Formats: sequence, C-alpha cells, structure tokens
Amino acid sequence: MIKNDLLLKALNGDPCDRPPVWMMRQAGRYLPEFMKLKKKYDFFTRCQTPELATKITLMPIKELNPDAAIIFSDILVVLQAMGIKVEMKNNFGPYIPEPIKTKKQIEKIIVPNIEESLGYVLEAIKLTKKELNSSIPLIGFAGAPWTLFCYAVQGSGSKNFNVAKEFIFKNPEISHKFLQKITNTTIEYLKSKINSGADVIQIFDSWGGVLSQKDYYLFSWNYIKQIIDSIKDSTHAIIFAKGCWYAIKEMSLSGASGIGLDWTCSAKYAKSQSNNNITFQGNYDPARLLSPIPKIKDDVKKMIKEFGTKNYIVNLGHGILPNIPVSHAKAFIESVKEFNT
Amino acid sequence: MIKNDLLLKALNGDPCDRPPVWMMRQAGRYLPEFMKLKKKYDFFTRCQTPELATKITLMPIKELNPDAAIIFSDILVVLQAMGIKVEMKNNFGPYIPEPIKTKKQIEKIIVPNIEESLGYVLEAIKLTKKELNSSIPLIGFAGAPWTLFCYAVQGSGSKNFNVAKEFIFKNPEISHKFLQKITNTTIEYLKSKINSGADVIQIFDSWGGVLSQKDYYLFSWNYIKQIIDSIKDSTHAIIFAKGCWYAIKEMSLSGASGIGLDWTCSAKYAKSQSNNNITFQGNYDPARLLSPIPKIKDDVKKMIKEFGTKNYIVNLGHGILPNIPVSHAKAFIESVKEFNT
Repeated sequence: MIKNDLLLKALNGDPCDRPPVWMMRQAGRYLPEFMKLKKKYDFFTRCQTPELATKITLMPIKELNPDAAIIFSDILVVLQAMGIKVEMKNNFGPYIPEPIKTKKQIEKIIVPNIEESLGYVLEAIKLTKKELNSSIPLIGFAGAPWTLFCYAVQGSGSKNFNVAKEFIFKNPEISHKFLQKITNTTIEYLKSKINSGADVIQIFDSWGGVLSQKDYYLFSWNYIKQIIDSIKDSTHAIIFAKGCWYAIKEMSLSGASGIGLDWTCSAKYAKSQSNNNITFQGNYDPARLLSPIPKIKDDVKKMIKEFGTKNYIVNLGHGILPNIPVSHAKAFIESVKEFNT
Repeated sequence: MIKNDLLLKALNGDPCDRPPVWMMRQAGRYLPEFMKLKKKYDFFTRCQTPELATKITLMPIKELNPDAAIIFSDILVVLQAMGIKVEMKNNFGPYIPEPIKTKKQIEKIIVPNIEESLGYVLEAIKLTKKELNSSIPLIGFAGAPWTLFCYAVQGSGSKNFNVAKEFIFKNPEISHKFLQKITNTTIEYLKSKINSGADVIQIFDSWGGVLSQKDYYLFSWNYIKQIIDSIKDSTHAIIFAKGCWYAIKEMSLSGASGIGLDWTCSAKYAKSQSNNNITFQGNYDPARLLSPIPKIKDDVKKMIKEFGTKNYIVNLGHGILPNIPVSHAKAFIESVKEFNT
C-alpha cells in the first residue's frame, strides 16, 4: 500500500481534502542539483543508466515534496528502440540524423522486444520503486504515436511540424503503417512499465494541437485510443494532449482515468465537456510561475476552487521552464498543501 | 460601388450563392513572381515602396482571382513607426536588435503621427485601390497590440514567447502602458487606412494563443476591444486570433463583423459560441493544401457545407505556406467558385 495515495484517490474519483500535486518536468533544468548532474552525463546516458534515472527522478521529491514521482526518461527512447537514431543536441533539442522519408524506411522499422531494447527504463522503475519505499505513487509515461511520428519525420523539434504534416497528407497509407508500428511498440512498452511497478501511466501528445480536429482523430486519437484500450484495465491512464481542447469529450469516454489540460482550457469548459466521471489534471501556465510568489499562491487557490478538490490533480499546463526559481516551484506545491476548502 | 462585393455581402450577413474566398498571405512566397521580386528588393523596401507593395498585392489577384485583395505590408511596421528598430533576416524572420526590457525604454516609445511615419502604407492603399478599379474589396490590417508586444519584447519570433510572457508577469503595470501605446497607434493607423480606401480591416493576433484565458482577456482582448470600438462604425472588422477558440463568444459580441478561425476549430463549435450574427472566416489547414488536388476540392466542399453559404468567408486557418504548389492554391480558390448548394 502506498502511504500518500492522494494521486490514486483523485484518479479513482474518491473524495480528497485537498487535491494531489505534481509538476510536469519536475525533474528538470530549473533544479540546481539536476544541472550539476547534467554537466557530467549526456542526455541518453542519464536516461539509460537506471541509477542515474532513479537519482534524477527522486531529486524533486526531496526538494519539493510533491504527491507523485514521474520516472526520468524521454518519449524518444521508443524511437531509438525501434531502430531510429535519435540524438539530443545542446541548445537545440532532439535531432534525428536520418529522418523517415520513404516507404522503404518505414518497412524496415522494427517493433522491438521491450526487455531487450528498453530494459534500462524497466530497471529504473524497479529501482525507483524500491527507493520510494511506498511513500508516493510512481508515474510511467510514453509519447503519443503521433508526437513520436512528428519527431521521426520532421527530424527535430518544430513550431508547426510541417514536414511531418506534409508526409501524412501526401502519404496517408504508409503514415498509418508507421503510426501502427509505434502504437504496437508503445503498448508493449507501457505493459512492461506497469509490470515493473509504474502505478499510473501518462500519455504525452505534445503535438496533437498542430492538426485539425478531423486529422487529429484520424492520425493521433485513433492510436491513443488503442493504447488506452490495452492498459485501462490494469492501471490509471492520463492523457495529456496539448492544444486538443476539442477532444475532451472523446477522451472522457475512452476509459482513461484522467485528462491533462493545457493552460488555455478553463475548468468551466473542461467540466462542460466531460461525463463528470473523469479527473482533470493541470493547468497553470508554466510561465506564470515567474509571477511574484503571493500571486502564485493566490492563483493556485483560485484554480483549486474552480476545479474542486474531487476528480482533480494540480499540475502545470505543460512542463516547468528552466528559468523558474526553485522557491517559486516550492510555493506552487506548498500552496496546494495549504489549501483549505 | 465594388463589382464583386461578395466579401462585403458576407460580412453584412447578406445571402450569397457561394461564399467569398481569399487566402491569408496570398501574396506570399509560394508565388514564383513574388520570389523573383523578393530577390531584387529587401523586405522593408517592398513594404515601404508603394509601387512595389501595390504590385505584390495584385500578384495573386491576377494569378488566382480571389474575391478580395489584402494590402502587402507587415504588422511590424507599426513598431518601426513607434521608434523601435525592426529588421527582417533571411531564414530567421523578424529581428529586433534592441528588444524592450525596461520601464525607461517604454517611457521613451512614441505614439507617432501616422501620415509622417506610415504614409507609405496609405499611399500603397490609394494606389492599389486605383489599380483594382472597384473590381474587388481591399483589406487593410494591423497586428493585435499583444502580438506586436510579443515581438518587441522577445526580440524575434518564438515558439512560446516566454521572454515576453515573463515580462508581463513580472511587470504588469508597465506592460499595460506599452500595450496602450501600441493600441493608440494602431487605432490612428487603422483610421488612416480606412480613410485611404481600405474596405475591410483585419486584426491579426497571431500569438494570443500563448496566454491562458484569463491572461488573454487582460493583456490582449482588452486592447483589441478598444480597436474594434474605434473602427466598427466606419468599417467591417475581422478578428483573427490564433489559438483563442475560447474567446469566440466575446468576439461575436464586440461589434466586429467577422471572426477568423484557425484550423483547430470546427464549424459546429464556432457556431455554438456565436450569436448567429457574426461571419466566420477560415479555416482550412494551410498544410492540407499539400494534399492531392481532388482531396482539396472535396475538403473545401465539405467545409462550405459545414459553415454554410451565409455569414461565411472561405480562407485558410493561417497563412499559406511557401511550399504550396500554385496549382493547389488555384484548386482551393476554384473549388469555392464551383460550389453549388
């Protein structure tokens, strides 16, 4: 049994005195301890060494005391496992030296054995669970197939992923084949994560918002739905799809336990779209953590009043930014813990 | 009287056999004739020379025959007029060598005399009107104060304008002073444009979508509203705020005649938010113009059926992309003209 099980209660829809809180990218570049470690080990060494991944996962837990840990890793390790080379360049972000451009490349892409290719993530989960010693739940995650497709085809980050979009619009059939391969890999990957001890799974569709609604359902949601279908009976799943405000209703009917909201959604709108049976997570604008601390505390209280203490997990609307003072991140977490209805 | 006044009819809410059509950035880099001229004259020379601006404005009219022209210019000329240096760098976009960082800088910023500082735009409008010879309406435009503020403070384009957001969250008071100066300038600028012959005004809030709803109303909509209030009695105004799906209701009550939609909005959602008295404009995904021509034609027909022929202007959901084949842009326009209910 987990001692602080607020996150699980919230996802179950059980009443809570206050909502649980954690932050996307809570083990990130705003933490001085993380920056020290970053200087010593490159990005994928940090991901691929279970001891380092565990250490990084636990950094924000010691420093900020949130109600959940999220395993330190990256959504792109799934592409690597599928045989696609991915680099992480300083001051640039992800870089794929040979982006996917042809049918031949897609045919060659493998659906890998997870133990062999991503065993290091599973090890990190087991080690982190041991270190957490049932204090708080551990979240495992994966990128949505569409978001991974975006990087694989675009070759890097992008404002609008026009190269990836051009590819699906010109080659819908082989795009679907590639998306299905990513989906199959992700399903096995997440099942292994759950078996290794992950208590909750979050799906990140960071780039769902570059598509129209029709194209989103066709090229992204179809595949997320398959993933939810395969894991919903064994765990709580949270779907975070940035910019996909219009899909909240579909998501709330999918069997997922939670929906992550970006900061452009209001509580009122989100609730109007749901079946009242889903837990919302979010959605403070990460840049708003640059406000003075009293303003942050006031905003968080208002946010909890708007969403309520039931079926709600306090979080940011996207990952925490590198330039946030640790004291401001702490104030965010503390103001949730201080909340009185 | 304008011979083809479909655009004005649509904005008046008059019945139309088919909706009017034009494309944001229709005088853009996808046109070979534009690229030829681009090699000869730099960006601001093209903006600042009325004969060149007119020539560029008319290029897509000859080539594609849309139902409206939009004056060739740039939203950033307003910052230049206010004494802020703006450069346009090849393969980079806008660049502000001395971004706004301090109260002192903001106090020094001027609300300029429009005839003196932006007379070249007014000249271009007069010249274009003459050349158009009352064939189709001419659209004038301005950036929303928030979007101009984003560039002035960030110093360049950005994925999320975090520097600009940091500034407003740390310095709300002086931010509002700067936004008000931009607003005052924009109001005078647009009045002059209308006096010079612009038949319709479009406000571009390209970066409204980086803010939360609360912050959007505070830092962007407040100022757009002032602009609409000042021009709505003398002209048709269209508000295009990318990513601001939640503000459609407010916009439809503002006195504007039209709302431009990005491609993440469905007709059904937009209509559910409006008072049935507003005209929608949009919203084909610009990247979707890379689809095969029969798919484009089919999509456009469906889009018109969803929005209807009344209170609707066919357009893209954002500017046309440089890599769109001219034949595909033509197919987009033609499929509207071929439309039969």
